[in-house]
Amino acid sequence: MASSANIIDVHTHIYTSSYLSLLRSRTTVPYLLDLPNKNASPRLIILPSDDDASISLETRGRPIDTSYSSIQEKVRFMDAHDISTSVISLANPWLDFLPPEEGIKWAKTINDELQEICAQNRQKRLYAFATLPLSASPDDVVDEIYRLRNLLSIKGTIFSTTALGSGLDDPALDPMWDALEDTQALIFLHPHYGLPNEVYGPRNSDYGHVLPLALGFPLETTIAFTRMWLSGVFDRFPTLRILIAHAGGTLPFLAGRIESCVQHERSFEPDGDGGRRGPKRDLRTVLRENVWLDAVVYSETSLKAAIELVGKEKVMFGTDHPFFPPLEESAEKWASVETNLTAVAGTEVRDMIMGENAFKLLGLETSEKLASS
Amino acid sequence: MASSANIIDVHTHIYTSSYLSLLRSRTTVPYLLDLPNKNASPRLIILPSDDDASISLETRGRPIDTSYSSIQEKVRFMDAHDISTSVISLANPWLDFLPPEEGIKWAKTINDELQEICAQNRQKRLYAFATLPLSASPDDVVDEIYRLRNLLSIKGTIFSTTALGSGLDDPALDPMWDALEDTQALIFLHPHYGLPNEVYGPRNSDYGHVLPLALGFPLETTIAFTRMWLSGVFDRFPTLRILIAHAGGTLPFLAGRIESCVQHERSFEPDGDGGRRGPKRDLRTVLRENVWLDAVVYSETSLKAAIELVGKEKVMFGTDHPFFPPLEESAEKWASVETNLTAVAGTEVRDMIMGENAFKLLGLETSEKLASS
Repeated sequence: MASSANIIDVHTHIYTSSYLSLLRSRTTVPYLLDLPNKNASPRLIILPSDDDASISLETRGRPIDTSYSSIQEKVRFMDAHDISTSVISLANPWLDFLPPEEGIKWAKTINDELQEICAQNRQKRLYAFATLPLSASPDDVVDEIYRLRNLLSIKGTIFSTTALGSGLDDPALDPMWDALEDTQALIFLHPHYGLPNEVYGPRNSDYGHVLPLALGFPLETTIAFTRMWLSGVFDRFPTLRILIAHAGGTLPFLAGRIESCVQHERSFEPDGDGGRRGPKRDLRTVLRENVWLDAVVYSETSLKAAIELVGKEKVMFGTDHPFFPPLEESAEKWASVETNLTAVAGTEVRDMIMGENAFKLLGLETSEKLASS
Repeated sequence: MASSANIIDVHTHIYTSSYLSLLRSRTTVPYLLDLPNKNASPRLIILPSDDDASISLETRGRPIDTSYSSIQEKVRFMDAHDISTSVISLANPWLDFLPPEEGIKWAKTINDELQEICAQNRQKRLYAFATLPLSASPDDVVDEIYRLRNLLSIKGTIFSTTALGSGLDDPALDPMWDALEDTQALIFLHPHYGLPNEVYGPRNSDYGHVLPLALGFPLETTIAFTRMWLSGVFDRFPTLRILIAHAGGTLPFLAGRIESCVQHERSFEPDGDGGRRGPKRDLRTVLRENVWLDAVVYSETSLKAAIELVGKEKVMFGTDHPFFPPLEESAEKWASVETNLTAVAGTEVRDMIMGENAFKLLGLETSEKLASS
């Protein structure tokens, strides 16, 4: 899939050294567990159900090999897939679990480290989305948002679905939305919590991680964004910019149903002032004006629906690296990436999705040398 | 939206007289509550959270006006929307809540009643999907499936997501799948249970029913079908026929992600015999060969994705009547129906979706007189 155009990856994760040291210092979920065998990857105990001494050390939680932390491996992966530029972001669970005063301290440490990683890469192949201390007070979050303007490789901020613990429709978040709108920082909304395990039924474990990963993540994202819209965030902050992971979860498919449910919702009938309650800007308008989507959806049909929903200039290629690695460890090209490349190639706007849209939106300075390499 | 072709509605609900008498005889959820004011519609207390004496009688549960039970109103609605033929089905919660011995008794009563309603309609404008006693023993369910062959207006059976209480991946259901495959009865998979309320967050009630209805229903459907596929039901019963409500929930959008998660699932790696575990027939094949979708999705973009997924001969118009009524009671045409009509008109296969596909699949005998009216 060679092309003269730059390929930019907006969805690619990393655990930085300081973040791993934070996880290693902990003994409650989430924490990192080193194995007695020094050659074995440490295990990330990320879910309460992982934290179970009856599970053998070698299979508890998930292995964190060097693909999660090594910039060399990230660049090797990029080279193998002709990716010229990556916008790296911390993988979940970010800083949600920290008490407020620790959240702000670690956010500064990690964001400075991300800036340093990108700045050290002299070919301008790396940019980053910052991490906000979403358990901290809104004032501290606001301070960090403004501080990020000084970190020139930071191009936005990755975002959990439960800021302050109660969701993106919490009115207490208004100062944060205000700062994000004021600085025009891109919000990268990403799932972490999924759905309660009982929704997958008694045979869930027979299917490994398929149900929570394939269905829980997209729905968590969809619910988080829909609550944000329903509560009027985009009415109060009409120029917010949000990039939604995994092509919007399920939004491109369910937007019509959501709109129909809103139109038929009796509790949104006119209030005393004669105006209809509920969100003022309709969902399609917000999706067209405020929402960007990545192309991590593994399907040409779904990608085309995503493009129709938000516009062809607002969908951007991503890999989700280092997740979905090939089962055959020797594979140089990753099947998960190839599936998405094939889907993008099936659209009429390949170059826009592969790099042009991200280049413009994020104001990148991708090196010309790379563009012609 | 006049057309010479017949319009067939495959997704339209009714509470029959015997079903309402069953609900009226009960005092635990679900039950029907008559109000002191004889002119007011009775209330259906369908959710545990509805069953709350602190909520005034007039707003407890949901009102069941005559649009839920009157065949005259159904036909009037059909006429207003140029619908020539409707395949009626009981609305949720069907018979899931009954003890086994009562389930089989009521299934027979209601299915006979549905047959009688359709047979009385001399213009062949009504057919029905039966209701199975999914809390009963598989043997009783199997008996009822074979008995339905004698009820000539019955064209399949509506299906909850939790047969026997433990989901459609329960191996105990195999005799039932066998009978459904043997009789080639169409399964109409429909949501009822949604998702646990906590997934919608603390401000859920501010948004009325929007989140559970718009997002919970489609995801419940998607999870139920995905479990059925993952457990190998379509490997063991490769000619089952299933119609999935609301255009498949979210399946047309998430199919690629589900496939990718399955391909990368380590617990599906080869077993001792060298074969890969997990479902044998891949998801796209099952969707193409075993799955039909209705067109109740309120979006041309989503409808096109649905058509691409299962094939243009396998998507069929539906209204979801009497749900999503217009907020202005005087409206003759329903906005919810018009939205779906507009979406279908935007495809290149309007006549197939509006009636031809259902006509062929269900073997209907729509009267010629109606076809030319």
